[in-house]
Amino acid sequence: MAQASIGDSEFDRGTAVTPREPGVYDAQLSPGWTIMNVLSGGYLLATIGRALGDALPHPHPFAVSAHYLTPSVPGPAVVRTETIRSGRTLSTGQASLFQTEEDGSEVERIRVLASYGDLETLPDDVRTTAKPPAIPPLEHCVSTADGPSQPGDFSMIDRLAMRIDPATIGWAVGAPSGTGEMRAWFALADGRDADPLSLLLTVDALPPTSFELGLRGWTPTIELTIHVRCRPAPGPLRVAIATRNLAGGFLEEDAEVWDSADRLVAQARQLARAPRD
Amino acid sequence: MAQASIGDSEFDRGTAVTPREPGVYDAQLSPGWTIMNVLSGGYLLATIGRALGDALPHPHPFAVSAHYLTPSVPGPAVVRTETIRSGRTLSTGQASLFQTEEDGSEVERIRVLASYGDLETLPDDVRTTAKPPAIPPLEHCVSTADGPSQPGDFSMIDRLAMRIDPATIGWAVGAPSGTGEMRAWFALADGRDADPLSLLLTVDALPPTSFELGLRGWTPTIELTIHVRCRPAPGPLRVAIATRNLAGGFLEEDAEVWDSADRLVAQARQLARAPRD
Repeated sequence: MAQASIGDSEFDRGTAVTPREPGVYDAQLSPGWTIMNVLSGGYLLATIGRALGDALPHPHPFAVSAHYLTPSVPGPAVVRTETIRSGRTLSTGQASLFQTEEDGSEVERIRVLASYGDLETLPDDVRTTAKPPAIPPLEHCVSTADGPSQPGDFSMIDRLAMRIDPATIGWAVGAPSGTGEMRAWFALADGRDADPLSLLLTVDALPPTSFELGLRGWTPTIELTIHVRCRPAPGPLRVAIATRNLAGGFLEEDAEVWDSADRLVAQARQLARAPRD
Repeated sequence: MAQASIGDSEFDRGTAVTPREPGVYDAQLSPGWTIMNVLSGGYLLATIGRALGDALPHPHPFAVSAHYLTPSVPGPAVVRTETIRSGRTLSTGQASLFQTEEDGSEVERIRVLASYGDLETLPDDVRTTAKPPAIPPLEHCVSTADGPSQPGDFSMIDRLAMRIDPATIGWAVGAPSGTGEMRAWFALADGRDADPLSLLLTVDALPPTSFELGLRGWTPTIELTIHVRCRPAPGPLRVAIATRNLAGGFLEEDAEVWDSADRLVAQARQLARAPRD
């Protein structure tokens, strides 16, 4: 397969938006980004993020906060954006993704607040004390495509080249570690390089940490915020996710994304409902 | 001094909101919550959170995401809320804080998305692997009121009973540790117990982590998200804040708040501009 490029790839086609009028964008949510029978929250966020990147005067998501309202389904959707503030180095916007029900009513799926900037203009200073995740070489990790087949629609897995650290994949063989941690190599299957927009997909693309806590059900996201801190260098990404506070029927999931140049390119946290089982 | 109570305290008076019409609230931002010459971002968030708690059908903030637009000043303000979705266990709302400029124009200061619920209805399960911060007993920590006086308005310090772990207060004597971590005991000075609303103040009340990184200037918040996970038990709180990724002129600051019953009651993360010096 020829290597896909930024702008001409499955991810770009799946998250494409078409301006309908100023600030309003049509999208076609693709069933190909379904995981555990629901559209990936990260895929939806990337679609909204693409609309905001067009509507706002700055190109790159710096801080994006999404509150998930109702489950999205494959098919047409509309993203309505509002420019709240345009500053010199940052602009702030709001966006909502809507879908039309059979009765013709428009239902809001997700609402987002976002601060956009230009990653190319940032100074080069790096005083990061965080260390990249300790993860074995890619060839020693486990491809999700090799995992046991599970009931339901997991189409998104075919679009990702993900290899999970064997130390954090006990859940796949009925022996979850109980640690609430998972680490993986991550790339898009068609070879498209990562960019700031695809990081919005990446931070919510691994199997949920709750699997390694021995909980197998769906973990619906209530809120997810991502900070994009650097344009990712070409090459596979390393993603580490962790849950440290599972209590009262909710859990947080933290995600870090590191690029091939050992830069921490994105940090994200979500609040999700813990599965019942 | 008689102990203040929830509903009758400096914090409650400072964050009071008065309904003007359905969903719209008048507030009076108090200069008493100023720190480094600006109104505390956590104080402003608590004021907005109080309005949302009145407007939404659920009482407690579960996940609150705030994007800071322009600096607020002491004086009148108005909080405009919108109920986006009312569910059985969670409701989602939006709020903006506005102030009127001298020329009569209304300027937006902060925009917020929030999911509210009822902490009293949550099950008792706790499988938290995070550990409370290692912090010396309160009497071995350093009161911020005892610190060297600094130029500018730090009125908020008088309203807090904060004692910082001596291991993380090197910045106050010109010897920052360089670790980007700070730990402190935290209470309101008038003795009012913590509640879900006051946690919105607490997660942004410590001196910035950048002080311990040797940077002394203002660290303006761009975005802050807090998850409130449990009603805090009476007694002093322990707060740990940390920065692991200072790069490109920005930094993240993570905050954890633990109560006297060793429950992790709140988790927050903010993206801020790094000081220039």
